[in-house]
Amino acid sequence: MTFRARHLLGIEHLAPEEIRAVLDLAEKYVELNQRTIKHADALQGMTQINMFFEPSTRTQASFELAGKRLGADVMNMGVQHSSVKKGETLIDTALTLNAMQPDLLVVRHPASGAVDLLAQKVKCSVLNAGDGRHEHPTQALLDALTIRRAKGRIQRLTVAICGDIAHSRVARSNLILLGKMENRIRLVGPPTLMPSGVSELGCEVHEDMKAGLEGADVVMMLRLQKERMDGGFIPSEREYYHRYGLDAEKLAAAKADAIVMHPGPMNRGVEIDGEIADDINRSVIQDQVEMGVAVRMACMDLLARNLRAERGRQAAGVMV
Amino acid sequence: MTFRARHLLGIEHLAPEEIRAVLDLAEKYVELNQRTIKHADALQGMTQINMFFEPSTRTQASFELAGKRLGADVMNMGVQHSSVKKGETLIDTALTLNAMQPDLLVVRHPASGAVDLLAQKVKCSVLNAGDGRHEHPTQALLDALTIRRAKGRIQRLTVAICGDIAHSRVARSNLILLGKMENRIRLVGPPTLMPSGVSELGCEVHEDMKAGLEGADVVMMLRLQKERMDGGFIPSEREYYHRYGLDAEKLAAAKADAIVMHPGPMNRGVEIDGEIADDINRSVIQDQVEMGVAVRMACMDLLARNLRAERGRQAAGVMV
Amino acid sequence: MTFRARHLLGIEHLAPEEIRAVLDLAEKYVELNQRTIKHADALQGMTQINMFFEPSTRTQASFELAGKRLGADVMNMGVQHSSVKKGETLIDTALTLNAMQPDLLVVRHPASGAVDLLAQKVKCSVLNAGDGRHEHPTQALLDALTIRRAKGRIQRLTVAICGDIAHSRVARSNLILLGKMENRIRLVGPPTLMPSGVSELGCEVHEDMKAGLEGADVVMMLRLQKERMDGGFIPSEREYYHRYGLDAEKLAAAKADAIVMHPGPMNRGVEIDGEIADDINRSVIQDQVEMGVAVRMACMDLLARNLRAERGRQAAGVMV
Repeated sequence: MTFRARHLLGIEHLAPEEIRAVLDLAEKYVELNQRTIKHADALQGMTQINMFFEPSTRTQASFELAGKRLGADVMNMGVQHSSVKKGETLIDTALTLNAMQPDLLVVRHPASGAVDLLAQKVKCSVLNAGDGRHEHPTQALLDALTIRRAKGRIQRLTVAICGDIAHSRVARSNLILLGKMENRIRLVGPPTLMPSGVSELGCEVHEDMKAGLEGADVVMMLRLQKERMDGGFIPSEREYYHRYGLDAEKLAAAKADAIVMHPGPMNRGVEIDGEIADDINRSVIQDQVEMGVAVRMACMDLLARNLRAERGRQAAGVMV
Repeated sequence: MTFRARHLLGIEHLAPEEIRAVLDLAEKYVELNQRTIKHADALQGMTQINMFFEPSTRTQASFELAGKRLGADVMNMGVQHSSVKKGETLIDTALTLNAMQPDLLVVRHPASGAVDLLAQKVKCSVLNAGDGRHEHPTQALLDALTIRRAKGRIQRLTVAICGDIAHSRVARSNLILLGKMENRIRLVGPPTLMPSGVSELGCEVHEDMKAGLEGADVVMMLRLQKERMDGGFIPSEREYYHRYGLDAEKLAAAKADAIVMHPGPMNRGVEIDGEIADDINRSVIQDQVEMGVAVRMACMDLLARNLRAERGRQAAGVMV
Repeated sequence: MTFRARHLLGIEHLAPEEIRAVLDLAEKYVELNQRTIKHADALQGMTQINMFFEPSTRTQASFELAGKRLGADVMNMGVQHSSVKKGETLIDTALTLNAMQPDLLVVRHPASGAVDLLAQKVKCSVLNAGDGRHEHPTQALLDALTIRRAKGRIQRLTVAICGDIAHSRVARSNLILLGKMENRIRLVGPPTLMPSGVSELGCEVHEDMKAGLEGADVVMMLRLQKERMDGGFIPSEREYYHRYGLDAEKLAAAKADAIVMHPGPMNRGVEIDGEIADDINRSVIQDQVEMGVAVRMACMDLLARNLRAERGRQAAGVMV
């Protein structure tokens, strides 16, 4: 297995064989999680701290379960009660956490780049659980695993990423990962929800859903990130659903065996029709959640191996 | 031991021998919890998720300790930060949780029936930790264990349930359990706090405390559920205490060795006189809390056994 | 090792050899925490409950990690959702917790003396994690360990405690500990932030920073506790920094090898200059956090030993 990284900050830093290493190991954890006794000891005796500066039940829960199933001591730092409120800077918070000697630090932060900054200040491995509009690498990895299991491969597929692309780190991380694995990517959405410079990304851009979904293997819907639309254009939900909500009619443009994805939480009747979301022949939305735990177990296991190896080398006096 | 249930949704679904099976096993856990090393491995490697849509320090803490002492990986889902706020439906939350593959799901919800609904959507065992005015089965079971230990039996006792019966799932679950075990039940309280249709329940109803407590073996006080009195009659605390608060004078009507119970948290001087609450010869209020942890350990242990057996049968290809 | 205490309520109850016993054992845990596998089994199978009536990310996290690394089942009681809100008294909360049979109870409370009161009502060991303006014993112990490691001893040092002394339990616990170990203590700050009766404490009091720091081995800065200044004098931050903020000029009055401490979270540019806080030759602020986890592990380990011995004697029928 080839996974060299010290941190998991973004898909942009991963080579294709590192992505494959995560997915291959995650398959083993998918199997483990289906058992009643779902315990491994990859992180036994290690400390994992989850620091969510932006609330997220589902991602935090997924990381928490992943760590606990691998035997780590897991601690959630409540940001509500946090020293941040007492005027402490992010760097001081990072240094304080570092002094408590975690081995793995899982961080979500509303500011793009904040997690990278934090990673420079600590001795442990840092996992980015989403930073601003920048990256959400474990989401892209779990999406990749879901696609690979459904389609048998994660190459040469036509993937339509649809909706609020401008505000979505999920879209950004997926775009990078799917690009590295040589897929054909289409971005579909209203121009107001497209990031600037999208024409330089080398992927097709569509304003019309049916044109964008034409012949797609994978239809990846996004959440309308109203909480990140500061002052800008906010579409009416009804109008949005009419033009960009995934319904049977629009989905008919995709391949007959196309799968439907959504990172959740879903706004039924806004981004997606409830019946499609529940259609077990098309929707892999629940699989995404299941793959999420397994992928996070794989990432933390691989990072912990590298951490142990690095510390072993340091202890042996070999310069790194 | 005879305990067939897949879920613990309400006392109404339990046969008397299943109730006895819980109480008998709970006795073993009472003993374990009195030791310094209070650990068993009934849930080792299993995942327990506590999902409280209504806050409750004491019940959640009791379930959390119960699971941890049995070796489970326990995760509390914060509902404040939850996807519920982002517009997710209860069913989508249930499906998401289910995809994370918990073995035991402990749920409290303000709506009667919500926990039953959720149980239909998941593959794991669901424990109802209180749903609306419907049921709170572990409370009734811990009350039964407390009574059985104090009185030597859980049959043929005269039990007065007093106070705000209309809004109380505690009263409802106790009424069902005590009825199944062939006790004489009296409901005591003002007509405004009696549920409709109470005359059909087959138990005595009293408006006067002294008449209701006459010769009782067990005096079970309830919390005034002001938070559940939407728009209706709210009694003044002073007036309420005068007529329905348990004081020495009213208690004198009960048997000389009658025990006093309260599910907590107590409003001293409203539902109950502080001195009676603290009288170790009469009050078993602290025992109720202690029995709570043991009863929850027993329930989760029994459900986990059934889950394992069911999965074993499925794996062996036997149709269920 | 000589450590006789049943609870850790304050430094005032500890003999010098008990303080030394904590520090000596903590050294072993400092070493353990530097390993990748940072696990001991001193609290295996025991239950630790953290009850913070006043929020504190850093202290709670430190106790939580300490307990988990020693193998305890650790539970945080959320005070936001707590029964306290439903009108329950502190004593009832204590009795309820006690009935859940914790072995170690870690309590922070805004009222001085509340933790002592609570300790009288429970059967387990209680650790004071800060009560009002009274005591914060683990902070004083971690400060002592930090000083002893930096200076090679914890006796005969000149220690300047600077800033908002009146509102600081950190100052108070440190004052007691450093006094017991025969150090020279100076209190430095504006008269408005000095506690009443300070002249009877037998330590030097200075209004001027340079005079107070003259020849000091240790410069201990305090947090401006604005949240505890009820109605009284609140200094402007700019004026405060000018007169009492630790900068290079003021620090020059101390010994050339003086160390700089701060209990955190810091207000950079108010109590301390950022550059001094980050100067690894002078500042031991990160070491304090690291020592915090180790000292709490040592305290809980020692209390658990005494608890086990006491219970063993009780079980053997020997009267205590």
